[in-house]
Amino acid sequence: MLATLAGGVGAARFLAGLVRVVPPVDVVAIVNTADDDEFHGLYVSPDLDSVTYTLAGASNLAQGWGLESETFATLDALARYDVPTWFRLGDKDLATHLFRTARLRAGAPLSAVTAEITRAWSVDVRLLPMTDDPVRTRITVQRPDRVEELAMQQWFVGERAEPPVVAVRFVGAEYARPAPGVLEALTLADTIVICPSNPVVSIGPILAVPGVRDALAARRDRVVGVSPIVGGAPVKGPADRLMAPLGIEVSCVGVARAYAEFCGSLVIDAVDAERAAEVEAVGVHAVVTDTMMRSPEIAAALAAETLAAVA
Amino acid sequence: MLATLAGGVGAARFLAGLVRVVPPVDVVAIVNTADDDEFHGLYVSPDLDSVTYTLAGASNLAQGWGLESETFATLDALARYDVPTWFRLGDKDLATHLFRTARLRAGAPLSAVTAEITRAWSVDVRLLPMTDDPVRTRITVQRPDRVEELAMQQWFVGERAEPPVVAVRFVGAEYARPAPGVLEALTLADTIVICPSNPVVSIGPILAVPGVRDALAARRDRVVGVSPIVGGAPVKGPADRLMAPLGIEVSCVGVARAYAEFCGSLVIDAVDAERAAEVEAVGVHAVVTDTMMRSPEIAAALAAETLAAVA
Repeated sequence: MLATLAGGVGAARFLAGLVRVVPPVDVVAIVNTADDDEFHGLYVSPDLDSVTYTLAGASNLAQGWGLESETFATLDALARYDVPTWFRLGDKDLATHLFRTARLRAGAPLSAVTAEITRAWSVDVRLLPMTDDPVRTRITVQRPDRVEELAMQQWFVGERAEPPVVAVRFVGAEYARPAPGVLEALTLADTIVICPSNPVVSIGPILAVPGVRDALAARRDRVVGVSPIVGGAPVKGPADRLMAPLGIEVSCVGVARAYAEFCGSLVIDAVDAERAAEVEAVGVHAVVTDTMMRSPEIAAALAAETLAAVA
Repeated sequence: MLATLAGGVGAARFLAGLVRVVPPVDVVAIVNTADDDEFHGLYVSPDLDSVTYTLAGASNLAQGWGLESETFATLDALARYDVPTWFRLGDKDLATHLFRTARLRAGAPLSAVTAEITRAWSVDVRLLPMTDDPVRTRITVQRPDRVEELAMQQWFVGERAEPPVVAVRFVGAEYARPAPGVLEALTLADTIVICPSNPVVSIGPILAVPGVRDALAARRDRVVGVSPIVGGAPVKGPADRLMAPLGIEVSCVGVARAYAEFCGSLVIDAVDAERAAEVEAVGVHAVVTDTMMRSPEIAAALAAETLAAVA
């Protein structure tokens, strides 16, 4: 059994490659839920959905989020009611949010609803939310005249990750319990993969759930990460806008330093080959390969290399 | 000022005619909410929406419910999650239910949310839910081997009004308070019109809200109804399936008897002209005219005749 720590799109693509080299039922994905938010009264879980839709072959690859062939009739109609509609929820996607929200209000934990949703999409990877408890990423940004704290989606989508970041916190993390199965997976897995996801706001919240970081550290030799930073920039998303202000170098070396305590190996891209020695210098075994997942075949090759790193 | 008691489609068409002969801002519509129900966690208020959409000129006239040019992408996608989708909520319509539900959960009373929705649709008629409290119509039906109680929409839409009706009750009615403005409108109105709506499940619940029936009875001379039964059958909907089992004759005379206590005049269709004497015999002034609202012009003429009946 393999355990993985996963954020959104980068993790989803990696997992889609991974299931080409190992049986999906042998993979547990522990997914960030600190990006979750409520829109129009609906509970939206962006990373769980990105992973589910991608593994189901239904995600909009060009767009990088949501479902393929989406329409936006409901969202466009909501504009009439003068509510913010910058978070683009498609009509088909809304069905997932309606179902999830109704089940949560009926008292089902997020982990149980996630299992129902993945079953409905015939996804055999076992998706676990990092916790069934509410954890929310809050981004403190610098305004011209003051600082202000924003919800993650407000900063990332609503303001296109533009406002400079001063601080990040994960509200509720200290009281959160790992979802059922999370610690068991980390304890029993042959290999633990930290997917190529944002180290600060995707992997960071999972590590902030009490017990997870220690569970990883105890298995450090079996933990392998994939750097989401290639050539000094994130492959996708705003990782650089978050890492730099928090004092993390925007490079595979910065990722290695941030993960060194609990991660024995790190896969870095071929363009960063010359930095492998620096990764090794912080006590992390460096594996150099092509990490740009331009196709499912490349993602599968990356997954195979990643597993081989701790084989 | 005119007060009206309104159900769904029949009332909506009548009101669309009425606002051609009196200023919309002078009209208060007190609308049945006992058909309201929850689908996929959303609060759906069929009669309020039928009236709003029709007055906004946006209703699907051919279909008799919902919005024109609708799509059903979300509902079709919900089928994946194995939830019942027989209640056909369109994508644009869903925006109304999302907005209303979020506002209700935020603590706004239904009357306040209704005002927000009608304003968004530029509807100048003042729509009042009969109550801000939950009242729900329950239909007891005869099964081959037993009786069973169904929610209104389950019976009407889910089972196409087919199961024979044994009894009807309005759960919660005895504890409901008229919404703000309802009793004031009934007290101050120059004329009170009972729209051509189902006497049992559209007008019945409004009358069941404590205070409403007495307020009408006190103004009996100013109250005029429009019979929804023409030639011994309802113009639309399942009124006959509800009236007969409850001992109400399915005719304009049956309507007159049911309303006689609080309604001084009743508009009946020309095809029922020979029954005018029977209506008069129960103490209700009969007005004979064309009540089949085949066009907004005919609806406007009907509205004018209706107002003239008590002028």
